[in-house]
Amino acid sequence: MIKVGIVGGTGYTGVELLRLLANHPDVEVSVITSRSEAGVKVADMFPNLRRHYDLAFTVPDTEALAACDVVYFATPHGVAMSMAPELVKRGVRIIDLGADFRIKDVELWSQWYKLEHTCPDLVEMAVYGLPEVNRERIKQAQLIACPGCYPTAAQLGFLPLLENNLVDHRRLIADCKSGVSGAGRGASVGSLLCETSESMKAYAAGGHRHLPEIRQGLSLAADRPVGLTFVPHLTPMIRGIHATLYATLKDPVDGLQALYESRYADEPFVDVMPAGIHPETRSVKGANMCRISVFRPQNDDTVVVLSVIDNLVKGAAGQAIQNMNIMFDLPEDAGLSHTGMMP
Amino acid sequence: MIKVGIVGGTGYTGVELLRLLANHPDVEVSVITSRSEAGVKVADMFPNLRRHYDLAFTVPDTEALAACDVVYFATPHGVAMSMAPELVKRGVRIIDLGADFRIKDVELWSQWYKLEHTCPDLVEMAVYGLPEVNRERIKQAQLIACPGCYPTAAQLGFLPLLENNLVDHRRLIADCKSGVSGAGRGASVGSLLCETSESMKAYAAGGHRHLPEIRQGLSLAADRPVGLTFVPHLTPMIRGIHATLYATLKDPVDGLQALYESRYADEPFVDVMPAGIHPETRSVKGANMCRISVFRPQNDDTVVVLSVIDNLVKGAAGQAIQNMNIMFDLPEDAGLSHTGMMP
Amino acid sequence: MIKVGIVGGTGYTGVELLRLLANHPDVEVSVITSRSEAGVKVADMFPNLRRHYDLAFTVPDTEALAACDVVYFATPHGVAMSMAPELVKRGVRIIDLGADFRIKDVELWSQWYKLEHTCPDLVEMAVYGLPEVNRERIKQAQLIACPGCYPTAAQLGFLPLLENNLVDHRRLIADCKSGVSGAGRGASVGSLLCETSESMKAYAAGGHRHLPEIRQGLSLAADRPVGLTFVPHLTPMIRGIHATLYATLKDPVDGLQALYESRYADEPFVDVMPAGIHPETRSVKGANMCRISVFRPQNDDTVVVLSVIDNLVKGAAGQAIQNMNIMFDLPEDAGLSHTGMMP
Amino acid sequence: MIKVGIVGGTGYTGVELLRLLANHPDVEVSVITSRSEAGVKVADMFPNLRRHYDLAFTVPDTEALAACDVVYFATPHGVAMSMAPELVKRGVRIIDLGADFRIKDVELWSQWYKLEHTCPDLVEMAVYGLPEVNRERIKQAQLIACPGCYPTAAQLGFLPLLENNLVDHRRLIADCKSGVSGAGRGASVGSLLCETSESMKAYAAGGHRHLPEIRQGLSLAADRPVGLTFVPHLTPMIRGIHATLYATLKDPVDGLQALYESRYADEPFVDVMPAGIHPETRSVKGANMCRISVFRPQNDDTVVVLSVIDNLVKGAAGQAIQNMNIMFDLPEDAGLSHTGMMP
Repeated sequence: MIKVGIVGGTGYTGVELLRLLANHPDVEVSVITSRSEAGVKVADMFPNLRRHYDLAFTVPDTEALAACDVVYFATPHGVAMSMAPELVKRGVRIIDLGADFRIKDVELWSQWYKLEHTCPDLVEMAVYGLPEVNRERIKQAQLIACPGCYPTAAQLGFLPLLENNLVDHRRLIADCKSGVSGAGRGASVGSLLCETSESMKAYAAGGHRHLPEIRQGLSLAADRPVGLTFVPHLTPMIRGIHATLYATLKDPVDGLQALYESRYADEPFVDVMPAGIHPETRSVKGANMCRISVFRPQNDDTVVVLSVIDNLVKGAAGQAIQNMNIMFDLPEDAGLSHTGMMP
Repeated sequence: MIKVGIVGGTGYTGVELLRLLANHPDVEVSVITSRSEAGVKVADMFPNLRRHYDLAFTVPDTEALAACDVVYFATPHGVAMSMAPELVKRGVRIIDLGADFRIKDVELWSQWYKLEHTCPDLVEMAVYGLPEVNRERIKQAQLIACPGCYPTAAQLGFLPLLENNLVDHRRLIADCKSGVSGAGRGASVGSLLCETSESMKAYAAGGHRHLPEIRQGLSLAADRPVGLTFVPHLTPMIRGIHATLYATLKDPVDGLQALYESRYADEPFVDVMPAGIHPETRSVKGANMCRISVFRPQNDDTVVVLSVIDNLVKGAAGQAIQNMNIMFDLPEDAGLSHTGMMP
Repeated sequence: MIKVGIVGGTGYTGVELLRLLANHPDVEVSVITSRSEAGVKVADMFPNLRRHYDLAFTVPDTEALAACDVVYFATPHGVAMSMAPELVKRGVRIIDLGADFRIKDVELWSQWYKLEHTCPDLVEMAVYGLPEVNRERIKQAQLIACPGCYPTAAQLGFLPLLENNLVDHRRLIADCKSGVSGAGRGASVGSLLCETSESMKAYAAGGHRHLPEIRQGLSLAADRPVGLTFVPHLTPMIRGIHATLYATLKDPVDGLQALYESRYADEPFVDVMPAGIHPETRSVKGANMCRISVFRPQNDDTVVVLSVIDNLVKGAAGQAIQNMNIMFDLPEDAGLSHTGMMP
Repeated sequence: MIKVGIVGGTGYTGVELLRLLANHPDVEVSVITSRSEAGVKVADMFPNLRRHYDLAFTVPDTEALAACDVVYFATPHGVAMSMAPELVKRGVRIIDLGADFRIKDVELWSQWYKLEHTCPDLVEMAVYGLPEVNRERIKQAQLIACPGCYPTAAQLGFLPLLENNLVDHRRLIADCKSGVSGAGRGASVGSLLCETSESMKAYAAGGHRHLPEIRQGLSLAADRPVGLTFVPHLTPMIRGIHATLYATLKDPVDGLQALYESRYADEPFVDVMPAGIHPETRSVKGANMCRISVFRPQNDDTVVVLSVIDNLVKGAAGQAIQNMNIMFDLPEDAGLSHTGMMP
């Protein structure tokens, strides 16, 4: 059994890791930390876990974490970079679900996250954990920077177009809609049911932290710097991201459907919908899956790609486990083979 | 008192008309028709109207409608055009909340609505009821084609850019999100709570009936045919439309905020938000108001406009009443002066 | 114009007062206080109020409040009792939407609210603001203790049975379901959309602060101390209370429907539904109305009463305005004549 | 592998069976029928099942079903009784998720379901599939009548009190709240998002079909006919039942908590919460689990029991699979060992 540690287990990403790992055949969660909840049983905080975990939260402790085979960081940015160097030194494998190691340009990271980076060398060694792009490098990685939720949906949607140089790379648009769980489990007026239910709004239209991350991934795929407008929206639902992506074709092409199907033919967790079918976020609720459709309205030169994930699964905890499975040479779908929940 | 008739009062647009007219100081609803519910009291069907209406639905009857000063059609397309000619002949003023008279190109209308048009001459005489564009013509109109919900939000958002020739008119994008009430009150699996709640999806990405209507309005504003990609989305809430609009500036300009404020300075029902503030659909819930923000992310050449309305009010019943107020020389906000409902 | 002051205007009760008063023909809101938001315009905090209020929050100030004709307290318990004595002395009329003056037994109040009461004499002079019981006394009152939301729904439902001594007063059951706005606008994990949406739970089954208030009102109606079990539930919606009330008939009686209709025949804001029809909370959304149905399942000796209100309107701000109207000899429905919002 | 047939696979119970069986290690779904959708792939109708099922709906066919080891009926009442006799004769084991075999008194059944029963002998042989009561008989059963959703929550909550003769059996109250999926996947105005969201209502307060079923189960537990008032409520959420149960203690007793814990100590799918903790329906979302709490407010003689399930899992498909596991001597939690989904 692989011994797992989780740093920061009281947020939605943490409890989702616990939910998914409870049914993983090859792992045992041996440490879960929370400064504020030390001593509390995880199943007292998250009663869905009753009868599955007897574990209690503990104060973060390097020795305990160093005894794990792999440590997940489900923490706000800044935490992982403070603890990772020591764990890396001691040979622990690390999967950071936060933002600390996602952006290779450390200065750019500092601008967006308003923080000095304390271990740029680890940024360099980190592998960006998008298996559909980096599977081979993930196998060897000691440190994984798990992609953000918006970046996962947006990149998987845009990749086939950019890798094949089919669209104007200077004017990409990602209009993304997220459920409220993306805002986390912190006590904030802005995430109250009475503030978010029965309403739709854009936020951070002037600039969101996932913008540089998406741009980095798309630029790598396009092999040149891309121009991207990214507008996130808060949607009145718990889970789910719906990315609606717009690009302009350089030449009128047929065969986009076939292109997408072929690009993801061997991917266990990307599902290209039949032509003309729109994906719904609820079809991936609770599942580690990205469903994608591609349209060319009125056969014009604008391509519209629809890409949906569960932000807590393929956009966070599920993708993290998928990375672990690859790193430890387990079946890639171990613990991740269940279907979405409809209705 | 102005005598009002309503044809097709059992849908969401119908009950919303009744709700708003119940507090209108100058009107009296004297006829409301429904073939299927004839004999049923409106307050038995919509108990929110108890103590406000004693009226019952009746079978549509030309004589009764002809005795009204104004008749609203809150019907699926095809109904208004079958009854309007006779009423017009008899001098009744008509406000059609459906699609029959919105599109000036009758052949185009037939393509999208899969129906022969039976009174093209009325299409010609009809005034498109967007007061922010056509207020003067509305005053004189006998027949109003009330704009669709998406078209209202999209046009009000794009107008200042197109009227001033600031953006590339060939590549406009309207990514629109609508509450489920936009799908109507018909019994359909696709509108069940269990099918729409906790989910987000695009629909009709290949082409939606509001596309030619929006394109017509924007082309008039731009004084040339525009290119438009329009993707509607079904959002898990009852009311509200959030239009997120993208356009490319021809030249880098400052002053978009001032431009929008000045364009709508005298409009009672368009509210430009302060710079940097994102509008929420809930701020207009139940109110006849369009709230708009304009952004230029990273000071780049893409403009993002956010435009929100309540699809049943400024997107339907409220706008219809606004038109009536203008036609009958009443204060434009009569019956429409309440605020939105938050929370 | 009646000059209105509001203490504590940043919560849901405060913004609802502002929404309703914006359309009240006889009042002008001249002061609204908030320590934390002093200087902020109310319309910047609650954008639905844009174009209706230019007012800004101010630090609570006795002079400014004393210049008002009536002051509403929309504050947590403890605040009104600290400021009311001075205002009362200066002749201001007070409507407390909080709990400070609701319970006549000051010791009992202290037990449930964990606070010493600082002005028991004001408790004595306060009139419990349930117009359906105390209309005559409200006319003369200087200080109104506005009923809680659960107590309004429960009392209006039980009154006819108890006033007529028809049921076993020792075993009353009130199973009540509330929307999340009842929990207020404070930043709390328990009120997040992700914690409350798509879930139902009881809370405070062992004892809730509204229990002694309901018991006091029912005991007055029954003219003897009643026994009551009250279980509140958190329901995944913004607004609304649904009280399901159970009592045992002493003798088999017919005519409960007629009894209820007759009891409330002259009440502008209590609406007895036709026999066999169940009220829905949405029929009173945004409206100052209580809708009630009475059932005797299987003609057995258990009576089931269903009573619905909007917790923020008839359960708080609307009822407060109704009290004001009565106090100032205005039409009782001034500012309260709109319908509920369906859908 | 156990060969499974499903009759009526297009409703919510059907798709939930498919979701759960997709991860069951010992079964293979070989037939799924739907008259209306014959030829359609289940994964085209329910895209969450893509990559899990290649199966298509077929017209119900006795031969194909007779080749199965077990056939589930996820059908409206009346269907199972028309097909079961032939399948029983041919040795197939049957699990009916509908109502045809739940009520032993065939005349009573006919009264409530407005239908003649065509195979009373099968009613007699059927075992009521509540494992917590009938586990031993389920092992031997050929025909299982799977309990309804409300009856499951209500019976599991009341059982310990009645089996031990602790409460007045003549006055039991079950105030139950259900998510909208309980109303099924049929196209009906009453289940639209716009009709059910943001609202709470009771329905069938005069009498609901689950009343005789609950009364039958409770009477067996009490060993005498019980008196029961049962009021179901429609709650604005997809899944979940919350039963709030009230009973009067004959004698003041302590130890209710211990009683409940001991009654369900060995039950894999009933979880008694720690004293003072209220269960939430979301803690069982997607999981085959009933969570129960017991309260004695103010140490008075009224007992309040809170019992929550997912209506589609422990209230339908999950319980059906639990029955199958018992019948086929599989581990009782095979395919049912996942946790609920929070958030």
